[in-house]
Amino acid sequence: MPTSYCLPKDPPPGDEVSAVGGSKLSEEHLAQLVTDIKDYQLTHGNVLKLVRFEEATRVPSIGVGVSVLPTPFPRRCFNEAWALQRCMNELYIRAGTDEQWLHTILQPLMERDGFLAALWDVHVDVRKAGVVQDVVCGIFRSDYMHQPCAVDHATLKQVEVNTFSAAGACHAEHVANMHRHLQRMRRVAKLDNEHDRDSLLSPGDNINSLVAALITAYQAYRLPSQHSYCILMVVQPYNFNVADERPIEYGLWDAGIPCYRCDWQEVLNRTTLTTDRKLLYRLPGSQTELEVTVVYYRAGYDAAEYDTQGMQVRLRLELSTAIKCPDVLTHLTTFKAVQQALTEPDVLKRFLPVGDAERVRDTFMPISTLDTSAKGLQARLNATDAAQAVHYVLKPNLEGGGNNIYGSKIPALLGSLPEEEWSKYILMRLIEPPEEIQGVLLTAEELYQGPVVSELGIFGTALWRREASGGVEMLRNESAGWTFKTKPSKVDEMSVVKGYGCFDCPKLTE
Amino acid sequence: MPTSYCLPKDPPPGDEVSAVGGSKLSEEHLAQLVTDIKDYQLTHGNVLKLVRFEEATRVPSIGVGVSVLPTPFPRRCFNEAWALQRCMNELYIRAGTDEQWLHTILQPLMERDGFLAALWDVHVDVRKAGVVQDVVCGIFRSDYMHQPCAVDHATLKQVEVNTFSAAGACHAEHVANMHRHLQRMRRVAKLDNEHDRDSLLSPGDNINSLVAALITAYQAYRLPSQHSYCILMVVQPYNFNVADERPIEYGLWDAGIPCYRCDWQEVLNRTTLTTDRKLLYRLPGSQTELEVTVVYYRAGYDAAEYDTQGMQVRLRLELSTAIKCPDVLTHLTTFKAVQQALTEPDVLKRFLPVGDAERVRDTFMPISTLDTSAKGLQARLNATDAAQAVHYVLKPNLEGGGNNIYGSKIPALLGSLPEEEWSKYILMRLIEPPEEIQGVLLTAEELYQGPVVSELGIFGTALWRREASGGVEMLRNESAGWTFKTKPSKVDEMSVVKGYGCFDCPKLTE
Repeated sequence: MPTSYCLPKDPPPGDEVSAVGGSKLSEEHLAQLVTDIKDYQLTHGNVLKLVRFEEATRVPSIGVGVSVLPTPFPRRCFNEAWALQRCMNELYIRAGTDEQWLHTILQPLMERDGFLAALWDVHVDVRKAGVVQDVVCGIFRSDYMHQPCAVDHATLKQVEVNTFSAAGACHAEHVANMHRHLQRMRRVAKLDNEHDRDSLLSPGDNINSLVAALITAYQAYRLPSQHSYCILMVVQPYNFNVADERPIEYGLWDAGIPCYRCDWQEVLNRTTLTTDRKLLYRLPGSQTELEVTVVYYRAGYDAAEYDTQGMQVRLRLELSTAIKCPDVLTHLTTFKAVQQALTEPDVLKRFLPVGDAERVRDTFMPISTLDTSAKGLQARLNATDAAQAVHYVLKPNLEGGGNNIYGSKIPALLGSLPEEEWSKYILMRLIEPPEEIQGVLLTAEELYQGPVVSELGIFGTALWRREASGGVEMLRNESAGWTFKTKPSKVDEMSVVKGYGCFDCPKLTE
Repeated sequence: MPTSYCLPKDPPPGDEVSAVGGSKLSEEHLAQLVTDIKDYQLTHGNVLKLVRFEEATRVPSIGVGVSVLPTPFPRRCFNEAWALQRCMNELYIRAGTDEQWLHTILQPLMERDGFLAALWDVHVDVRKAGVVQDVVCGIFRSDYMHQPCAVDHATLKQVEVNTFSAAGACHAEHVANMHRHLQRMRRVAKLDNEHDRDSLLSPGDNINSLVAALITAYQAYRLPSQHSYCILMVVQPYNFNVADERPIEYGLWDAGIPCYRCDWQEVLNRTTLTTDRKLLYRLPGSQTELEVTVVYYRAGYDAAEYDTQGMQVRLRLELSTAIKCPDVLTHLTTFKAVQQALTEPDVLKRFLPVGDAERVRDTFMPISTLDTSAKGLQARLNATDAAQAVHYVLKPNLEGGGNNIYGSKIPALLGSLPEEEWSKYILMRLIEPPEEIQGVLLTAEELYQGPVVSELGIFGTALWRREASGGVEMLRNESAGWTFKTKPSKVDEMSVVKGYGCFDCPKLTE
């Protein structure tokens, strides 16, 4: 299904090995680009930390997967996703505030999903103890692909929403800046088409936007204190992806706000909860204690983190007066069951004005539970039928990629599980991106040239107050940045970590 | 010989493992610092590229050696070195313009030093062809240590001057910024003394200063052309130290000036010299040719680079109308024989006003040739006497560290060479830095805590016109930045590359 923004299938003649957006890419140019990219990455911290090879005094790092050339993406879809983000923020904020609705969705799953149940328990314990902080901060990321359609050439379709520990902002900014640099080099070399001049977005401002959101939260913490204030970034130990976290910390320091990283497992050692539930953080190597104004979670998203000690960690943080980014209720909206529930008829209207609800709904793919309702039974039929299953992806209810089951593999997977376990999954109609988009990717394994699929992520930041009435007072609500990732079409999963997804920069097409 | 800026010898009691400038460093604090430093390095490109492990799509990198805490250095010595840099620039510029003087110094060495002879040959060939560019650019670095003295507590003593391919500016800037960041963390933790508030220099501006010098040269290239202009950075292939070069390239692009890296071995392939001796650079993967306005050498300093092809490379670049940073005559001043000759009585007055000459001379250590003059014979006695030799360092005439012979090893080395070969070396009185300065270093091999020795490098940038009369018109002359390196006292040589020298930031003491 060729569309206007796709490229002709026939490669250009001569020694050009690729042609993207009209730029011809010779072997010589390609070799130069790869050299320039490797050096750009290592000089800009666009890297992964090789924690397995860490030594006492040094640790190696290596570039993340990146595209060699920007990959085409419809400008209209980008703009739509950007414009929608404030609605998406509001949708998930309101869904996460409607405790009763959330409970209805999640309760049936808790019996078989210990992680979900554990988070809900934390919420219940906090409620029992009494809420001492009614302001919540959110850094969300809504992911999309675009799907050809007869009317508009392309429509925006949502993959998922991450409301907890959304990553990629720093890498995405570096890669956007890198592609601006490579583009200006191509211009001087007269290797860029005139009409590509405005095809790349301005250098990203992701890091500053996320920092600004955390500053707003910091400033909203107005409790008088005898201590100085800080922001606590709770992180996973041995994290290979520090380069996607550290720049936010540095940005806060540059703004005069002390920000400290604390390993999830160290929280109980390094913090105390005062009788009035203030969270104090003791600085390493010092007797100084600071009062934590904001807890920014970059950990706590894996079920394995919630052992007995991990439960205490989460509970202590949630019980405190610190503003959570985000709190456990908002965390719960990141489960796929919530994404599925939001696709049910009339649910969006519960949370959004009609007009916004319709715009949001247009981005949804059909998603179904695999329960014994009429719809669920139909979904079971589709999922277990080899011919139908190829159009679907089976997603575990848990947040985070990496465990999805695609297409033809679904029937076998379900066949291996007792039907009671099927409720741990949702069945989502696969987005069918255009087939003819060509890309050049520098993955961990190869210099890939061929058909690619891209995923756009829009960051949203928000600050809100939960009202006693159950309502929400929005204090801040912004579209805050973007990520763009591309993978070879043949690969199902978009995973930069696993080495076949690449950070990229959209080359906006009309 | 304790001096006022040294620390007491006795370590403080308790679990503190080090004390620098009054800051107490616990094991916990130290572990945190090391973690913070590792991450700061990889997120800021303060790294070495592990070219031996380079793969087609990726290349690992690793942090350079750095200090964990800033090392004390006398503020007065720093200020003096900074203030002297314009004199140092002028001295070496004028020495490199006085062709007759230079020839007198170097000619006796050429017979036994092929590299020196090769460079002189290039100069002679350029002179024969006729000079088509009378403007020269310089990026120099003058290195110092400080030596206790009874009168002033400390005096500044020059180690050497690098007038060609001076490195370290980018790493030094990152490390200075890193120490500012770590210092603000210590302040919040109340681990910093009040009197240390102003001890660190403002964040470095090395990169911008070097970029500004190259921009000035670029703007001074006023030849009309049908081509667009660029700057050519000539580099070594498989360079592990790209992170010390790339930021300068990016800075030029940010200023709107195209800058390209070209491997030394690729110069003949990628450039052409027109009949009017303009240097054209063909862009990789493109038919576009740009006119090179400035050749910035970050290669061409190793004798091994001057095989038959390498000679052609250097000659083509030097013959061109491009402004060289710097030209071959200035390159020749970087040999140790020139440094030695400048210590001879009355030589400085040849190049500098009397007042400046005296200030410069005060930084010189005694240096002697090992020839058969009365002074040379005395030097031979010192160098071959085990008891005397410990006070000297024997330096090969060639520029660049790494081949010096220290103290007790000198007699054996000289004994193994025929006396005719001795002229390849100069004998320099060792600077004797204070013995009691304590430092904490993160070297490739260890977390070192103990006595250290530091070396301050001051960058100078200049642009000048060689007048037909043999004079010099100074167009620009600046102190442009600094590096600061520290090594364990027990190690003779200051080599970050070899893993025991560390980039550092001076903690200025009164």
